[in-house]
Amino acid sequence: MPRARVEGASDIDAQLASFLTRRLSGFDNRELRSAFGSFMTGVTIVTTTGVDGGPRGFTANSFTSVSLEPPLLMICIGKQAASMETFRRARGFAVNILSEAQKDTSVLFASKRHDKFEAASWRPGPFGNPLIEGSAAWFDCARYQVIDAGDHIILMGHIEAFSYSDANPLGYARGHYITLGLEQAAVNAASSASRTVVGAILENDNRLVLLPDPSRPSGLALPEVGRLGPSGSASQLHDLLQREGLDATLGFLFAVFENPGTREQCIYYRGEALLHARGRTVLADFEDIPWDRLPDEATRSMLRRYAAERKIGRFKVYSGDHRQGTVKAVD
Amino acid sequence: MPRARVEGASDIDAQLASFLTRRLSGFDNRELRSAFGSFMTGVTIVTTTGVDGGPRGFTANSFTSVSLEPPLLMICIGKQAASMETFRRARGFAVNILSEAQKDTSVLFASKRHDKFEAASWRPGPFGNPLIEGSAAWFDCARYQVIDAGDHIILMGHIEAFSYSDANPLGYARGHYITLGLEQAAVNAASSASRTVVGAILENDNRLVLLPDPSRPSGLALPEVGRLGPSGSASQLHDLLQREGLDATLGFLFAVFENPGTREQCIYYRGEALLHARGRTVLADFEDIPWDRLPDEATRSMLRRYAAERKIGRFKVYSGDHRQGTVKAVD
Repeated sequence: MPRARVEGASDIDAQLASFLTRRLSGFDNRELRSAFGSFMTGVTIVTTTGVDGGPRGFTANSFTSVSLEPPLLMICIGKQAASMETFRRARGFAVNILSEAQKDTSVLFASKRHDKFEAASWRPGPFGNPLIEGSAAWFDCARYQVIDAGDHIILMGHIEAFSYSDANPLGYARGHYITLGLEQAAVNAASSASRTVVGAILENDNRLVLLPDPSRPSGLALPEVGRLGPSGSASQLHDLLQREGLDATLGFLFAVFENPGTREQCIYYRGEALLHARGRTVLADFEDIPWDRLPDEATRSMLRRYAAERKIGRFKVYSGDHRQGTVKAVD
Repeated sequence: MPRARVEGASDIDAQLASFLTRRLSGFDNRELRSAFGSFMTGVTIVTTTGVDGGPRGFTANSFTSVSLEPPLLMICIGKQAASMETFRRARGFAVNILSEAQKDTSVLFASKRHDKFEAASWRPGPFGNPLIEGSAAWFDCARYQVIDAGDHIILMGHIEAFSYSDANPLGYARGHYITLGLEQAAVNAASSASRTVVGAILENDNRLVLLPDPSRPSGLALPEVGRLGPSGSASQLHDLLQREGLDATLGFLFAVFENPGTREQCIYYRGEALLHARGRTVLADFEDIPWDRLPDEATRSMLRRYAAERKIGRFKVYSGDHRQGTVKAVD
């Protein structure tokens, strides 16, 4: 690991820097990724044309606009990425900023599938690079500069043409997507005349947090309020979690839907939980969820999706350095 | 404006590039800023120590994590920024990623106030740069590299120490803050037992969109549903806007509060509106809002805040290139 370049520092400063640099060798990369993940980002698909003339592209969130005059932008690509060399040598590239309707496209281009461009709608841009249909904005760029930066390269592009729409942009923070449309659906659900259930999918040390369901013998349920009696609210959910010894920061919505069996409007947040007291909490491995003890098919279906996305999110699609810049660069 | 560097292109490609580069001279900077603004970002305060030993800092959203080994990050600073030279020469800098509770701190450090650091809570980091208390994450960095990039410089830092919390991060898109806490408050308000009013503060060509209030002679109101009869919802609001010939993309919440007079839970979105048909719509200049024709003090109070933030947002704090990278760099 290279020494930090400390210029103009006094001897004492240099000693301090040396100490800190040594300390740095002990950095935990997972911790650094998590810290990087605190910065909210949009999601882009970066594309170019390979030497064979075929389209190439990957999902990335390491985009930054740089300059207006001249019009410049940049993205980071991991040196270990299969397509890095293609992008480094290409005469240009396009950056497609995804809208909240394009979550699936984001997942597609973060995958290793070879038929990405067959599965997506796209067309060549004015400067020749592939533009993904339905994006919130796109920039078709000529290569301007390539900068070596540790385990990544910075690819700076000179914008040759661009366009944008008023679609709500897709967001990403702490390893999860953010869609304002889902937030609005939650307001809608909560303001409907039907009863509202507000719940949480919480993880503690990679296990799912469940609570006993008093209405069914040996039944289990997600932490949730409003299933019996009047509608639940997020503040009631907070109170419940506190009573059960669970310390959780909620903020990211996972699902908003109407339970077809009960006609309840269901709003589920997700998050990590600390256990202050074990209390009545049951922790279940995701590979061994007690499906038959859960209240209904709607809950099972949502948890199956959560478990699947979680697996993809942590072990496949974002197995790279998703919190660190490039979500994943593949060919 | 420099020619785009097109390497390895054929003559025809070069001609095309030349054509596009000329076309580029016609780029509208406001349009380019708006396109850049489609990319959601977090918000950071970047700090350093001046030659006089005093703390310096500004609000920026042009942050990108770059590399894990070595641990690198970067920010962009406009060359016209008063503090650019200070940062360019400093031996290091810190990046503070703001939490959603720090919107005021973001506004403070985007201002030209000289007492920013007196008004904020901060302490020196392990590497000596000022750390803002309550941030979602911070990185204390040594200067690693300075890269010239059009009208900005890219300041790359080598991370000497860092930390992060589980606070929800503050977001920014299309010139507005995004706070997940406000979204949750809206779900809370909508799921409460009280009646819910859902409305919108919409602008058309820099004017406020109002509608006649049928319950009061010559009364005006924001487009809103739920004030009379059963609770309103976002989908009912959409229907109302459509009926009134207004085409608006809602997605950003502006306010969630309980109207003290009526005990209604009020949820207001904001956005831009296109007018398909003038219909009954009344467009009011923000300098000349018909305050006495509005329904109540709660509406007036919210609109006063909107008008004030709008003025700051458009003409003062973010008068720079807020959609372009650096929100504003001041000394």
